[in-house]
Amino acid sequence: MNAPFPTVIIEALSPVIDGGKFPIKRITGEWVVIEATIFKEGHDIVRAVVKWRSSASVPWQESPMEAMGNDRWKGSFQVQEIGLTEYTIEAWGDAFESWLEEVEEKIDGGITDFSVEVLEGAVLVRLAMERSLIHQGGSQKYQSPSDLEKLESYALRLEKGTDLSLQELNAIIADEPLLSIMRQWPDRSFSTCYEPSLTVRVDRLRANFAAWYEFFPRSAKGSATHASTFRDCLARIDDAKAMGFDVIYFPPIHPIGITGRKGRNNSLICLPDDPGVPYAIGGAAGGHCEIEPTLGTLADFEWLLKEIKERGMELALDFALNCSPDHPYVTNHPEWFFHRPDGSIKYAENPPKKYEDVFPLNFNIDSWQELWNELRDVLMTWAERGVRIFRIDNPHTKPVAFWQWVIAQVQKKYPDTIFLSEAFTRSPMMKVLAKVGFTQSYTYFSWRNTKQELEEYFTELTQTEMKNYFRPHLFPNTPDILPYYLQEGGRPAFLIRAVLASTLSSLYGIYSGFELCENTPVLGREDYADSEKYQLKERDWNAPGNIKAWITRLNQIRKTYSALQTTNNLQFCFCNNASIIFYLKRSENNRDHLLIAVNLDPFHAQSGVVEVPLHELGLSYDASYRIEDLLSGESYYWKGASNFISLNPQTHPAHIFKIS
Amino acid sequence: MNAPFPTVIIEALSPVIDGGKFPIKRITGEWVVIEATIFKEGHDIVRAVVKWRSSASVPWQESPMEAMGNDRWKGSFQVQEIGLTEYTIEAWGDAFESWLEEVEEKIDGGITDFSVEVLEGAVLVRLAMERSLIHQGGSQKYQSPSDLEKLESYALRLEKGTDLSLQELNAIIADEPLLSIMRQWPDRSFSTCYEPSLTVRVDRLRANFAAWYEFFPRSAKGSATHASTFRDCLARIDDAKAMGFDVIYFPPIHPIGITGRKGRNNSLICLPDDPGVPYAIGGAAGGHCEIEPTLGTLADFEWLLKEIKERGMELALDFALNCSPDHPYVTNHPEWFFHRPDGSIKYAENPPKKYEDVFPLNFNIDSWQELWNELRDVLMTWAERGVRIFRIDNPHTKPVAFWQWVIAQVQKKYPDTIFLSEAFTRSPMMKVLAKVGFTQSYTYFSWRNTKQELEEYFTELTQTEMKNYFRPHLFPNTPDILPYYLQEGGRPAFLIRAVLASTLSSLYGIYSGFELCENTPVLGREDYADSEKYQLKERDWNAPGNIKAWITRLNQIRKTYSALQTTNNLQFCFCNNASIIFYLKRSENNRDHLLIAVNLDPFHAQSGVVEVPLHELGLSYDASYRIEDLLSGESYYWKGASNFISLNPQTHPAHIFKIS
Repeated sequence: MNAPFPTVIIEALSPVIDGGKFPIKRITGEWVVIEATIFKEGHDIVRAVVKWRSSASVPWQESPMEAMGNDRWKGSFQVQEIGLTEYTIEAWGDAFESWLEEVEEKIDGGITDFSVEVLEGAVLVRLAMERSLIHQGGSQKYQSPSDLEKLESYALRLEKGTDLSLQELNAIIADEPLLSIMRQWPDRSFSTCYEPSLTVRVDRLRANFAAWYEFFPRSAKGSATHASTFRDCLARIDDAKAMGFDVIYFPPIHPIGITGRKGRNNSLICLPDDPGVPYAIGGAAGGHCEIEPTLGTLADFEWLLKEIKERGMELALDFALNCSPDHPYVTNHPEWFFHRPDGSIKYAENPPKKYEDVFPLNFNIDSWQELWNELRDVLMTWAERGVRIFRIDNPHTKPVAFWQWVIAQVQKKYPDTIFLSEAFTRSPMMKVLAKVGFTQSYTYFSWRNTKQELEEYFTELTQTEMKNYFRPHLFPNTPDILPYYLQEGGRPAFLIRAVLASTLSSLYGIYSGFELCENTPVLGREDYADSEKYQLKERDWNAPGNIKAWITRLNQIRKTYSALQTTNNLQFCFCNNASIIFYLKRSENNRDHLLIAVNLDPFHAQSGVVEVPLHELGLSYDASYRIEDLLSGESYYWKGASNFISLNPQTHPAHIFKIS
Repeated sequence: MNAPFPTVIIEALSPVIDGGKFPIKRITGEWVVIEATIFKEGHDIVRAVVKWRSSASVPWQESPMEAMGNDRWKGSFQVQEIGLTEYTIEAWGDAFESWLEEVEEKIDGGITDFSVEVLEGAVLVRLAMERSLIHQGGSQKYQSPSDLEKLESYALRLEKGTDLSLQELNAIIADEPLLSIMRQWPDRSFSTCYEPSLTVRVDRLRANFAAWYEFFPRSAKGSATHASTFRDCLARIDDAKAMGFDVIYFPPIHPIGITGRKGRNNSLICLPDDPGVPYAIGGAAGGHCEIEPTLGTLADFEWLLKEIKERGMELALDFALNCSPDHPYVTNHPEWFFHRPDGSIKYAENPPKKYEDVFPLNFNIDSWQELWNELRDVLMTWAERGVRIFRIDNPHTKPVAFWQWVIAQVQKKYPDTIFLSEAFTRSPMMKVLAKVGFTQSYTYFSWRNTKQELEEYFTELTQTEMKNYFRPHLFPNTPDILPYYLQEGGRPAFLIRAVLASTLSSLYGIYSGFELCENTPVLGREDYADSEKYQLKERDWNAPGNIKAWITRLNQIRKTYSALQTTNNLQFCFCNNASIIFYLKRSENNRDHLLIAVNLDPFHAQSGVVEVPLHELGLSYDASYRIEDLLSGESYYWKGASNFISLNPQTHPAHIFKIS
């Protein structure tokens, strides 16, 4: 603000998260479109610019905003640098344009004496000349002498006063070059800046467009008797790459504790060969910065990381703030844990469930800063080793303030770091974790199966304020979640959920076994029977009935069509069958929009009439057009909005239509 | 906040204006009901209180908030002191209640070994004992020794450890007195306060419930040839009192300039007897702190003010920031005005309209502080003289920042001061003036005539965020506005607009002449012909056809029924005739709800079926009940929701029903 008090009101900015407390999120190269209500007392013409800078040490860039009527203004800028970009609005009453309007209104009102008005105009032109000269001195911008000359000539004409004819005055106020030169040198000495400025967190492309593949490295070769090591993982990674996945995600790879180690199926009895739960971190071989010896050495890890990167893929690591009773922290920092009156350390519980192999950390302690710094250093260590994606286990059981701090710390040094929040809890906590810094978030997708549920949830995710800070990462399954829908619906259910996950969000992932349609549960629960959390898993990675070809095709389509590379371009359309969901994914360049229809019923063929959003597609109400199903390769001739489709869950539960 | 970092998330507070930038408004004795989303990581039981204080020098008061589900909480407090009251929310994870829940869940889960849990409970009880003792030392609260004794006995029982039976444990955790005592001494050392705190502006009753009567004191006696003085005003004031008005509002009473003085009907030719426009302030007799000599002296003014107060009424003065060319400021502070290149001072214009008798002030000058201080001192002078209501003329043509500052300055010294914003402009400016401090606001009511217009506008005013900061003051006419509806609709239109103004808001006013149904316009415009802004006005204050009895009855009903003493208790109900508007005004004590039906058509009788909101009235769907029209005194027997009404605009254009 240049004025000693706010001279222009700038309010109701959009988008803005909680009044500007938290940044909005964008991907590098994306546009930030800002709207605001901007006005001033009296009759002055207001002008406004949006200003942005990627750090306080670089000068502001700016671009003019446009009035949309009713005091509402719009402006935009493109974000480039990964990290935080600051932005604000500057607005002012523009003396010259106000003068133009006043003179126009007086001419329209039949006034004929402009002897003083033209002198006022001349003064304003001469003041602009002075401002341009000052700028030249500072060599910030170059004002061509010809422009100066032109302004001088306008000033001289206006200074003719009563000798200036009305016709000549009319010509001057309608003169585009004059307005254009004057707009370069506005008087902003009484301008107002919106305060405090807002921020946008800019992430790299993979923060918003990626397909993840999760597997336990110890099960890589699919042997129930011989644990696989990092050196055994290449086949699995190549298979994931062939299916079109970009990110390999490993559950924790750190030493697993012995004390309290769980046996198969969460048994308290642990046999000598039982490998333990990877989330019970810490043992003789070390804690969160070390490698579980049965997986290999740090050198093996680094070799594998290099192999993954050479394939154009990336590795995501799990960050689970659990300590086994054997974790070095327990001996070195007993004050970081919860102590009970009997002298024991409290293990994790979710009554009546007990996790005897895991001690949670106590964040509300006097020496909290020491603990927080240590945890930050763990992340820094892995970032230093080249890991730039962290999937955070259960962030909703640690203080939100800790995440806000630690994510900022890591991203300050490694701006390209991505954090995925694995929070499955009530909505306000899910949202606030995204607001305070998580790049991506797990969702309720796993439990949204009907058309109404999906439409409501994805409308909230993509059409409300959430679209500006919450990037939904869709997992149809996880090691902890085998949804009833997959248990009951069998192979067709896997086909259906794969289409939904890969097209409803540009971010999705599967936990290995999904492609094999594994769906044997612990009876009556959403847990996997014989979960590999507790044991090595025997698998034929090419077992009959697998849906690898289907997933491969989906990932190919995602990579080919930009409409599937972003999430908020979703629009639900009408289908008269409640089992068929029908939606449009718009492409930014207005070409290659996709229309997607999915039969949500895994048991029966369903057919119905869909309403094609012709207007959005640029088609007339009676247009004839050819559509091509990218999944089957088949084409159809359609006409107008209403068209018939039929989807068999066994053979083709979905269409992904491209309009030709 | 006591914790070193926020431990509890407190967000989405309601009501809140622009993220807390501006206070909400309440009347002394009213309740502030706050809702917020409050939650914490993990499984701790959260507790929260709302805290408030009327100044930083008094201790916080607090009352517990209640959980409403889905992390949403509600709390309330009653405001008392006029001025600003600060409030916030404090929340914490409650160790003892979390312990209670954990033990309950374990019992429910079939766990039987509580040997350590009971010791944990004992520790928590003993910690509460310590906290209570500390408080006693500071003598802030008295903890009865019997409570201490009880806690000691609970602790001893829990310390029995394995000797405590499950039955005994069950009894302890279900023990109401234990919970009640423990709730007095919660551990709030890791609590979080919502920051920054919010404020509520508390006004006196008349800020929200009043009927205003505006007249030009110089026309008090209704003579076109002899100007009335303050000493002539008593009859007019008594008449207004008899009609039930509470506030007398005078246009500016300051010396009127001679230079550029306007003649009748805004003529540039001013005859010797023309009194001039009261808004062209300043002359030989002084400026904004002095009295126009033809009205009397300051002593006369003070006498009149006393007379008004003795009648239980109050005087509102106009604060118009215009200066005539003869204003002392023009000589003493030429730098406060706009200067033109020809050496002249710029008079006010709204092209092509010219106000040659008025110089506007220039707020954007280097010596702005001097100007602002002077204007504040004008208000202070009148406040000192006993005026506590100011109607501010055209605030939307002065900087909003000035109003925010000057209102705060005046209310700091005179907290009971009321400011009415006479802004007729676009909606964002109307709203921001209310946000920054105006107690009441003029509205678009004057131009809202149809049922749809009225329902939409009053729904916005009373059901959206506006209800918390914008108090609509309804004027069916002003010296500047003779709406076409009144011009065309004649006497029935005046009856109709009087009912609407006096019942749609608890604040309304009329400009004198309304009660006489004066409606001769300048042809084709909303201006009064022969406006008394420019001349003395001849009037018979009891002219035939006047509607004084109607207005008197309306004001009587307003004073009798609390439902009409507040504005936001409005609810529109259905009537199947588009010309009849039908609404419920709820009373706070759930007695004396009023149902109001108005025929908006001034030309024809209209009838229709209304739907009585039986549920809101506590009546069953088939109830029989008697309703009494407070306007006519007639009673009707109605049954169920649908009932017939018929309204003749000539004789009874409205019903105000009381349900018996």
